[in-house]
Amino acid sequence: MMRTITLAGLLLITAGAWAQSAPPPSAAKQAVVQSVDRHAKDLIALSDEIWAYAEPALREHRSAKALADYAQRKGFRVERGVAGMPTAFIASYGSGRPIIGIMGEYDALPGLSQKAESAKSPLVAGAAGHGCGHNLFGPASLGAALAIKELIQAGKLQGTVRFYGTPAEEDVGGKSYMARDGLFNDLDVVLSWHPDDRTRADNMSSYAMVDVRVEFYGKAAHAASDPWNGRSAVDALELFTDGVNLMREHIRPRSRMHYTIAAGGDVPNVVPEYGKVWLWLRDSQRSEVEALLVRVRKLAEGAALMTETKSAVTIQTGSWELLTNTTGARLIDRNLRWLGPITYTDAEKAFALAIQKENGISEVGMSDVIESIEGQETETGSTDVGDVSWIVPSLGFTIATVPKDAPWHAWPVVATSGMSIGHKGLLLAAKTLAATAVDLYEDPAALQAVRAEFEKKKGSTVFQAYVPPGPPPIPK
Amino acid sequence: MMRTITLAGLLLITAGAWAQSAPPPSAAKQAVVQSVDRHAKDLIALSDEIWAYAEPALREHRSAKALADYAQRKGFRVERGVAGMPTAFIASYGSGRPIIGIMGEYDALPGLSQKAESAKSPLVAGAAGHGCGHNLFGPASLGAALAIKELIQAGKLQGTVRFYGTPAEEDVGGKSYMARDGLFNDLDVVLSWHPDDRTRADNMSSYAMVDVRVEFYGKAAHAASDPWNGRSAVDALELFTDGVNLMREHIRPRSRMHYTIAAGGDVPNVVPEYGKVWLWLRDSQRSEVEALLVRVRKLAEGAALMTETKSAVTIQTGSWELLTNTTGARLIDRNLRWLGPITYTDAEKAFALAIQKENGISEVGMSDVIESIEGQETETGSTDVGDVSWIVPSLGFTIATVPKDAPWHAWPVVATSGMSIGHKGLLLAAKTLAATAVDLYEDPAALQAVRAEFEKKKGSTVFQAYVPPGPPPIPK
Amino acid sequence: MMRTITLAGLLLITAGAWAQSAPPPSAAKQAVVQSVDRHAKDLIALSDEIWAYAEPALREHRSAKALADYAQRKGFRVERGVAGMPTAFIASYGSGRPIIGIMGEYDALPGLSQKAESAKSPLVAGAAGHGCGHNLFGPASLGAALAIKELIQAGKLQGTVRFYGTPAEEDVGGKSYMARDGLFNDLDVVLSWHPDDRTRADNMSSYAMVDVRVEFYGKAAHAASDPWNGRSAVDALELFTDGVNLMREHIRPRSRMHYTIAAGGDVPNVVPEYGKVWLWLRDSQRSEVEALLVRVRKLAEGAALMTETKSAVTIQTGSWELLTNTTGARLIDRNLRWLGPITYTDAEKAFALAIQKENGISEVGMSDVIESIEGQETETGSTDVGDVSWIVPSLGFTIATVPKDAPWHAWPVVATSGMSIGHKGLLLAAKTLAATAVDLYEDPAALQAVRAEFEKKKGSTVFQAYVPPGPPPIPK
Amino acid sequence: MMRTITLAGLLLITAGAWAQSAPPPSAAKQAVVQSVDRHAKDLIALSDEIWAYAEPALREHRSAKALADYAQRKGFRVERGVAGMPTAFIASYGSGRPIIGIMGEYDALPGLSQKAESAKSPLVAGAAGHGCGHNLFGPASLGAALAIKELIQAGKLQGTVRFYGTPAEEDVGGKSYMARDGLFNDLDVVLSWHPDDRTRADNMSSYAMVDVRVEFYGKAAHAASDPWNGRSAVDALELFTDGVNLMREHIRPRSRMHYTIAAGGDVPNVVPEYGKVWLWLRDSQRSEVEALLVRVRKLAEGAALMTETKSAVTIQTGSWELLTNTTGARLIDRNLRWLGPITYTDAEKAFALAIQKENGISEVGMSDVIESIEGQETETGSTDVGDVSWIVPSLGFTIATVPKDAPWHAWPVVATSGMSIGHKGLLLAAKTLAATAVDLYEDPAALQAVRAEFEKKKGSTVFQAYVPPGPPPIPK
Repeated sequence: MMRTITLAGLLLITAGAWAQSAPPPSAAKQAVVQSVDRHAKDLIALSDEIWAYAEPALREHRSAKALADYAQRKGFRVERGVAGMPTAFIASYGSGRPIIGIMGEYDALPGLSQKAESAKSPLVAGAAGHGCGHNLFGPASLGAALAIKELIQAGKLQGTVRFYGTPAEEDVGGKSYMARDGLFNDLDVVLSWHPDDRTRADNMSSYAMVDVRVEFYGKAAHAASDPWNGRSAVDALELFTDGVNLMREHIRPRSRMHYTIAAGGDVPNVVPEYGKVWLWLRDSQRSEVEALLVRVRKLAEGAALMTETKSAVTIQTGSWELLTNTTGARLIDRNLRWLGPITYTDAEKAFALAIQKENGISEVGMSDVIESIEGQETETGSTDVGDVSWIVPSLGFTIATVPKDAPWHAWPVVATSGMSIGHKGLLLAAKTLAATAVDLYEDPAALQAVRAEFEKKKGSTVFQAYVPPGPPPIPK
Repeated sequence: MMRTITLAGLLLITAGAWAQSAPPPSAAKQAVVQSVDRHAKDLIALSDEIWAYAEPALREHRSAKALADYAQRKGFRVERGVAGMPTAFIASYGSGRPIIGIMGEYDALPGLSQKAESAKSPLVAGAAGHGCGHNLFGPASLGAALAIKELIQAGKLQGTVRFYGTPAEEDVGGKSYMARDGLFNDLDVVLSWHPDDRTRADNMSSYAMVDVRVEFYGKAAHAASDPWNGRSAVDALELFTDGVNLMREHIRPRSRMHYTIAAGGDVPNVVPEYGKVWLWLRDSQRSEVEALLVRVRKLAEGAALMTETKSAVTIQTGSWELLTNTTGARLIDRNLRWLGPITYTDAEKAFALAIQKENGISEVGMSDVIESIEGQETETGSTDVGDVSWIVPSLGFTIATVPKDAPWHAWPVVATSGMSIGHKGLLLAAKTLAATAVDLYEDPAALQAVRAEFEKKKGSTVFQAYVPPGPPPIPK
Repeated sequence: MMRTITLAGLLLITAGAWAQSAPPPSAAKQAVVQSVDRHAKDLIALSDEIWAYAEPALREHRSAKALADYAQRKGFRVERGVAGMPTAFIASYGSGRPIIGIMGEYDALPGLSQKAESAKSPLVAGAAGHGCGHNLFGPASLGAALAIKELIQAGKLQGTVRFYGTPAEEDVGGKSYMARDGLFNDLDVVLSWHPDDRTRADNMSSYAMVDVRVEFYGKAAHAASDPWNGRSAVDALELFTDGVNLMREHIRPRSRMHYTIAAGGDVPNVVPEYGKVWLWLRDSQRSEVEALLVRVRKLAEGAALMTETKSAVTIQTGSWELLTNTTGARLIDRNLRWLGPITYTDAEKAFALAIQKENGISEVGMSDVIESIEGQETETGSTDVGDVSWIVPSLGFTIATVPKDAPWHAWPVVATSGMSIGHKGLLLAAKTLAATAVDLYEDPAALQAVRAEFEKKKGSTVFQAYVPPGPPPIPK
Repeated sequence: MMRTITLAGLLLITAGAWAQSAPPPSAAKQAVVQSVDRHAKDLIALSDEIWAYAEPALREHRSAKALADYAQRKGFRVERGVAGMPTAFIASYGSGRPIIGIMGEYDALPGLSQKAESAKSPLVAGAAGHGCGHNLFGPASLGAALAIKELIQAGKLQGTVRFYGTPAEEDVGGKSYMARDGLFNDLDVVLSWHPDDRTRADNMSSYAMVDVRVEFYGKAAHAASDPWNGRSAVDALELFTDGVNLMREHIRPRSRMHYTIAAGGDVPNVVPEYGKVWLWLRDSQRSEVEALLVRVRKLAEGAALMTETKSAVTIQTGSWELLTNTTGARLIDRNLRWLGPITYTDAEKAFALAIQKENGISEVGMSDVIESIEGQETETGSTDVGDVSWIVPSLGFTIATVPKDAPWHAWPVVATSGMSIGHKGLLLAAKTLAATAVDLYEDPAALQAVRAEFEKKKGSTVFQAYVPPGPPPIPK
């Protein structure tokens, strides 16, 4: 297969620019790069396996097992089914401080099945696909943890490394449950990365978000013969959404509210006794999200009062805004620049261009630069990494694994995540994670600086998860 | 003038059909008919005077004075400014029981000024006009009271007669304040009539109604620079009206709710801190109106809750549904049939046809029959006579004073109310009122039967006015 | 009572009284009653079989087969799968005129599974149940057709009898497709009945109805990062329903509009590109339904214009108001009174009372009278018999098969339809259908009178089905 | 770069410091300062006179006359009633180029009458007041023009000076009509200023805006007896505003839409045949405002379609976003720093503190610094100077005339505009305007630089006024 043939080429990432602007990379740092190269074949195989499984949120049974089994085979202590989720696990090695975590995701997206080809073509019609590249995410992170484990085992580094298998990022928010249950509490730092169309250390926040279910309960009646005896839950629902839309003028321009009508009556000839709105509230500040939530509760209560129905507002999930760590971003940025951008074969370049042509976007191929950590704007999207970032300094970055400007959560991401373009990203991600971890193990001052920034920004805030008490919503 | 020239012709109303189906009209009954004819010139002059004044609700100063002065000149005891309204008065004569009241209205309608001509032509552009024929109403009723007074004075009848000058029927509801203040409490029966396009004794109910002011109080802010600090009273208002419209599916088909937006913000660049809806609720049953009002209060409260504003729901006025009295309707019907329908001159017929042609309606002229008391449907409109009808048996009828199917509250009513067609109606109305009063004075069994039906229908209900405590809203 | 006596004896109640005021029941009429009794065991077994199948609309494969097979075994010519519906069939016998049809239904309702017990207890949780008693409907009608077939076969009656197996009354409207395809065109009369809580000949109309799907097509966008690039189909949907609710003030009080929100977006973080409302419009007059539909089309078009989306309004099904036939109702009424009301055992009475107690309604047991054909009010519900009634005179009646005032489309109907109370109703229905058919076969004047009333009421109207061209929506 | 060179100088506030970092103020510049001081008494008297008149938009008859008469007395050629507005005028002196305009406003705000006292106390209850300080604006600008006129007359400067008396800034937008009619077309530069709570040269844009009237025309009917024959204009209005609010999710966060309901029906018992919304659309980009307007037209059209009414969308006024001129801002800034901030007496300081105390805001007194031209954010408000700024380079600044953070368009502004705090601001404004004009007359390079920036930013855009053709809406 083309994928294995090009494997050799993947290993040629060099590190020229480093020497000029920073201390020369330590032996340990050189070692982790070599480790990733040494396990590259395994990691790519794991990625391709998970890509083929394409299991959505909280259904990642085979994907999680593949990763956990690999970790176990490689000598990690593995705890499976943590935080009430059968597909969440933690693989640990070493002892004592520092304790550095590396997170990996592996859930797919419904309906996005696609072959590793440059034109839209489902692998299995209607099935899920890795439209967010999480098949690369898990193996890269585990590969980094493995590289560190080898150095600890060899006595070259002191401390503990932990790989967090974090399911359900696309829905529910697996990390939020793990955060709620305290699984990150004793970490010194946590690292992660994400596939993207560009390569850079993250130095931007994301939006805080709550995901709420707003339900109304009315009284049924025959809509033709005695509608006056009915009290419509859908009337309440419509007033509620009217209220949301009127409220839009009176929220800060940066805030976002968006909803769907998840239940709006069964059959027309019955006055509906049940209605449901699914609503997300977001803002760059968690405090504002909470202020919006207070108002949304009033909207629901008022709409119920107006229609003589009952309402219930339930938080389903949510995440805090990401707490950035510029000190950490600089460490990552330095490692990215040392490792350098990926180079692509002509075939890969053609693949990327073909995808861009298919999508009617600028045919510029893959991004081939390391972008700056300066001037990054807050992401209006949300992530469950946000929750983790208020418990432990969370450092992250993105690696270009898809053509520039390709639509996200869409078939092009599935396509490149299943072939050499994605594989190259996986390896660069693993090396960057491991190299940054080495910095933190080897240089107590660096670790201290990262934590100092974290403590200062966090202040006295104590994380409290938006996800409700009780077990996660495991599908049956 | 044509109006005075035709006066002689007005007096020729004969009474042929009576003998066959009822006891022969008493001498007293003959006398009241003659009395009305004797004062016809005065009554018509009063009507024309009030028609020319055309004073709207609670501004009927000259109109009320003209009537009260006439009554005083004719020997009535006159109490002016009753129930807190400068334009309300009571003119009494006699003593002891029975006490029979006759009500008269005299308020005009804004914007309906019109000459006594058969094509649209305002007398004074933009001014008020008697588009409901109340200029005929007051004088006819006073004429009937005068006829009775003469018989009491002559010792031919025993008891008391009272003319009620009841202002502001078109707005506010003058009778409702008089009812609230107990001015009808000691009556045995009250009589009234109304101009119409047909002649018949009333045997139908009307809708109960409340007139409410729904106000919202928000918080102003600059709509461009910090709308998020504002809480819009108009948002609340819009949710309120949305709620009213959603509620329409869940009220009985016979109920009516209608509103206007009376205040919806001053200038666009300020988030409005005040909003007002003017709402009427109606149903054939007062209990249902009250049930609607309970729900409307919830609508207002809920809309305020949803928008973080304050609400206030204030009853401005309202009236109960009319309590019919079929026993009384039969008395009136018998007198109408005795007095017979009005006959019109060729000029009058042509006048009526011309109006119908102008309005694009069927050119059938004036109604010339006494319609039946059977099969009358509830009127969806409302009247302050409704309130009176729960305190004292209230008998009424309509007299054709406008062409068949002519639009009401419109120029054709003003036109015919100012010329001989209206004058003939006035005289027939006065005679019918007086003749029916004679029946009640002379025949204790008839009076008793009327009251028995009233007591039975009313049951233990005790009237409570919808109009609020405190003085009526007298304009400044 | 006096009123019925003066109605030329039509309404005299017992079979004994029949002789006095009407021709004695013919031998043929006696024979059909005996035939039903002779096949009672078969008919009840068929009913119980269909009750157990409980197959919903257009899925009644086993139910239709049971009935069609029985008809075939009994000597009818059977045509299956008519009008494009696998579960529709026609069973015929005889030749020449008159051709009399008898319709039978057999579809169940989703979610109403219930044992034949007097307390709520599903037979199969979540499964369908005969909550409208159609398991009784089909066998009774077929039993009546069989009784007539025997007489034709025996040369006692001349003409043709046809049983129409009409599926999907509860949804889609099977008869509407059969009517559209002309399957009733050559009939002289059609008969049917329906289970109910009371027994009487139908002399009331039902509401005309159209069932429409209103769809909106917008443009998706990320709801957090660029909602300004999206055009929400749900915005359009909400404006559409706002429009419906505002319109309620401006339709006749007797009209009905009711809807559900069938699709209102998938996930909150995507601006919805699709929305669907499911709407029914009803009125006692088809012309008014059509006027409403014109306005609804404008609502959809306007809502799309306002939101820069596209709309589509599609008629899914619909039915005309029922054309009553009082001449036919009198025939049925006479037969019902001849056959007399059902008598129940103590156990059956207790069963009925227990159901009423369970439902918190008046514990009065089963209705035991034949109610009058006078004073029946238009049913605000709709039926696909309405369509048939504009093609051929359609005579019908109801038989009490459930306790008085028991909730319809609910478990009590399933319960009594599966035990002796329902069975007794089935037999009375079969006898009444057959006896009325005998009247029409034997008495050309009666048939002629029924048709004359039909022709007069129908006038020149030519039936056109609301159901769209093309095949019925057969589930896969 | 000049910017960094001059930056040092900017920070040195006194006129003494000027010499070190910039050319010494010319004799002409010294002369204009002396001129303003010489006429100070006149200018303050004019200001107090206009303050006392307090005439609102397009009613500034006495205010305009006072200024125009003064100009005429001082030797200007005065053209009154320009651009169709009786209260607009132009006063000119000199000939040839450059032609420099100076604009002055003088309209008051309804309802803000206030004495020149530090606690709320209306001068004339309910009357207008100078809540935007325009009584200072006009005289200061005219004083500057007079200073220039004296130099031209004395042969010290070459060219033409023009004072523009621009009415109705608070409503309608007088400058927009003057711009539409080409009255600014031949200018080289135009100068203006505005009272404020801080002193600085303007270097920020403002929002473009259109002010539209959205009207609906329905069909009246009696709301109780036949509402089904009515088509409510208020229904249309409500759908329209619903549409605006739904649209809020789908516009850029920086855009603003705000409205009031200006007409929402007369009396509840009539289905309203007329409804009016008053709507403002704003964005920092005129193109976006126009895109919003296109959508608003669809909202109105769709709402009318949905309700079977008619709609009309009419632009009443509007203004373009302000085209900034940083070159000009630097000239002004230099002059402001030369002239220095105002110093206040103890009494004035106490007056300012008392106002702040009354308003519950920070008691910091008057601003006493010249603020920077760097980092100014776009003003979300709009101004008719925006229109002018696309025709001719428009330079402006603000002078502190009210206490820091005092509410605008409120009584504190009226108070300080009527006493010495305002007067001091007036004089500094006049001097700054005149000094900046001197720079432009004396230094062709400076004028050329200002125009070059203007031409570059404007590009090929040709101004087209939002105000409609035809006469301005002069009140009667």
